[in-house]
Amino acid sequence: MSGNFPTAATAAEILDCVRQTRPRVHCLMNTVVQKFTADGITVVGGIPSMTTSLEEIESFVARADALTVNLGTLDSERRKVIRIAIEIANASGKPWIVDPVHVDYSPSRLAFARELIALSPTVVRGNHAEMTLIGDVPNVVRIETGPVDHLGDATRSVRIVNGHPWMAKVTGTGCLSGGVIAAFMAVEKDALTAAASALAVTGVCAELAAKQARGPGTFEPAFLDALSEISGDAIINHARIENAQG
Amino acid sequence: MSGNFPTAATAAEILDCVRQTRPRVHCLMNTVVQKFTADGITVVGGIPSMTTSLEEIESFVARADALTVNLGTLDSERRKVIRIAIEIANASGKPWIVDPVHVDYSPSRLAFARELIALSPTVVRGNHAEMTLIGDVPNVVRIETGPVDHLGDATRSVRIVNGHPWMAKVTGTGCLSGGVIAAFMAVEKDALTAAASALAVTGVCAELAAKQARGPGTFEPAFLDALSEISGDAIINHARIENAQG
Amino acid sequence: MSGNFPTAATAAEILDCVRQTRPRVHCLMNTVVQKFTADGITVVGGIPSMTTSLEEIESFVARADALTVNLGTLDSERRKVIRIAIEIANASGKPWIVDPVHVDYSPSRLAFARELIALSPTVVRGNHAEMTLIGDVPNVVRIETGPVDHLGDATRSVRIVNGHPWMAKVTGTGCLSGGVIAAFMAVEKDALTAAASALAVTGVCAELAAKQARGPGTFEPAFLDALSEISGDAIINHARIENAQG
Repeated sequence: MSGNFPTAATAAEILDCVRQTRPRVHCLMNTVVQKFTADGITVVGGIPSMTTSLEEIESFVARADALTVNLGTLDSERRKVIRIAIEIANASGKPWIVDPVHVDYSPSRLAFARELIALSPTVVRGNHAEMTLIGDVPNVVRIETGPVDHLGDATRSVRIVNGHPWMAKVTGTGCLSGGVIAAFMAVEKDALTAAASALAVTGVCAELAAKQARGPGTFEPAFLDALSEISGDAIINHARIENAQG
Repeated sequence: MSGNFPTAATAAEILDCVRQTRPRVHCLMNTVVQKFTADGITVVGGIPSMTTSLEEIESFVARADALTVNLGTLDSERRKVIRIAIEIANASGKPWIVDPVHVDYSPSRLAFARELIALSPTVVRGNHAEMTLIGDVPNVVRIETGPVDHLGDATRSVRIVNGHPWMAKVTGTGCLSGGVIAAFMAVEKDALTAAASALAVTGVCAELAAKQARGPGTFEPAFLDALSEISGDAIINHARIENAQG
Repeated sequence: MSGNFPTAATAAEILDCVRQTRPRVHCLMNTVVQKFTADGITVVGGIPSMTTSLEEIESFVARADALTVNLGTLDSERRKVIRIAIEIANASGKPWIVDPVHVDYSPSRLAFARELIALSPTVVRGNHAEMTLIGDVPNVVRIETGPVDHLGDATRSVRIVNGHPWMAKVTGTGCLSGGVIAAFMAVEKDALTAAASALAVTGVCAELAAKQARGPGTFEPAFLDALSEISGDAIINHARIENAQG
């Protein structure tokens, strides 16, 4: 459906496809939120893997259907591993997403993020401060997440108006959504549609989870419950994917 | 009770002994599930430690009563540390378990798992794909976990028919059960009995936890609650440890 | 308020100030509890960061308002990073806390803890076994946590009688409280008052959380909920900060 506009119905279809086909997502994920991200990918229907070992990265990426590259807790070993993983993903045409976490804190991390973006990721996703530094990214789906998520490619511009303030109080919801975007890209070639669908699904699940929770602590398990059990109808009823060009 | 057959009553007794004696379990655990495993060992009554530092591994293993070696997120430093830890455990007769996580993903990891198994672990535990690659393990208690767990040694063959499908939706329940097996082996010399008891206890707790949960997210804290509070009577009433030779 | 005695009212004021000013806390935290600590700092109102990369530590500490140095999962790379971080904190007058986790397990870790304490941390916090080995720490606020927390500086001696036994069943509550102490020190120059207030707030929140939980598993998210939503009045009504010299 490349070139079409993502809708709540497409989001529901793609989630169903993830649940049916169980794509493998390899995550080069900061050490802080590895488990939360793995849990998120699993409950949504994918199969996560997490190693950042130089000896093993080739085998793991070779088996994966998509890759997520998160720049948190970035050291020199991890930089090497990320370069190898991206080379393999590019050589085999696998979709990959870069999450330039905290590039606003560290010039060396920003330089590394720019190096990676020159290698043609499928998607770049960050918050407002991060994406302002990243700037334009031609030929890449660009996502700026926040209370409202903004997505764009060469021809389309989309807004997702789902989510809940407690997402910002739980470390790693953005990282987890990067993993879910990767899982969706593994089954849907139109990356803007895949990413918009993933963010709509996580946003709707956050809204439903907040109703089951008393605060950000109980919100976290409720959010995983929602990702696990959400129905296509609930997505169709609640997802707010808007054309931002209108 | 070596040579005897494990029962629900032995499982209850061993758990009680863990709670009384508080064995120390050192975990060479993948970075993804360190906290979840530590929490599981703690609530069941043991005292976990987690360092994988080359400078410190000797001191930590020397103080431990059992060791769990998990091959997730395996890098070259971690391989060195694992070899040292096993040497100390073997020299002092401490029980240890190997969890060959994802050896089906990586030939180098499979080769390393075989190297470790040649060093005579007390127990090897993996899922079906992993244990098929591991093959026969003479003189070692062999465990294949799944919807039904299969355990065997030279003379006995046991089946545990407890558990819940949400266990497979929470990253690290298998790793956590490896830590609980280590804690049980620290207080019970018959490794098959210790391992069967640990798996029966975790399986029964999963069943009880599922009744308190709405999905895999809320299942995780409920599972830790159950491991903390389960009574000997509940184990005796619910554990299904079966003779697989019958 | 240096030299004054901390009270429940000061604890409520400092928490309010953290919520208003959102101090940045950089954590050199063991890999086991990075997410739990980050979540704790976030819900209490601070902004956590966690990298331990040699390439990036300068940039991250330069932006931080306080530093927490936790000695869990300590390897040689981490030792280098910790030394650099402390040098920057000292040069710019930022408060920092050392948490000498498990120095009772490892002589090399104890030696490293002593090296750090000679660099004049603002606070040292450990459990009874750890602080017994650490011994006297002149010119540093000394905290021994346990069922009752004991704090002292050159002239004052304080006891916090809040908390709940489930805190000891959740891996990382002590590490998290180290992060909260750092956040409080970022906004309150009198370190004893900041630390006593942080421990009173976490202790009261633990008591409130236990009422919402069925065991240590459900206690953890409830504890984060409580840290997020606790009111100044609840702190004033429940905090038990006592003069231990009386």
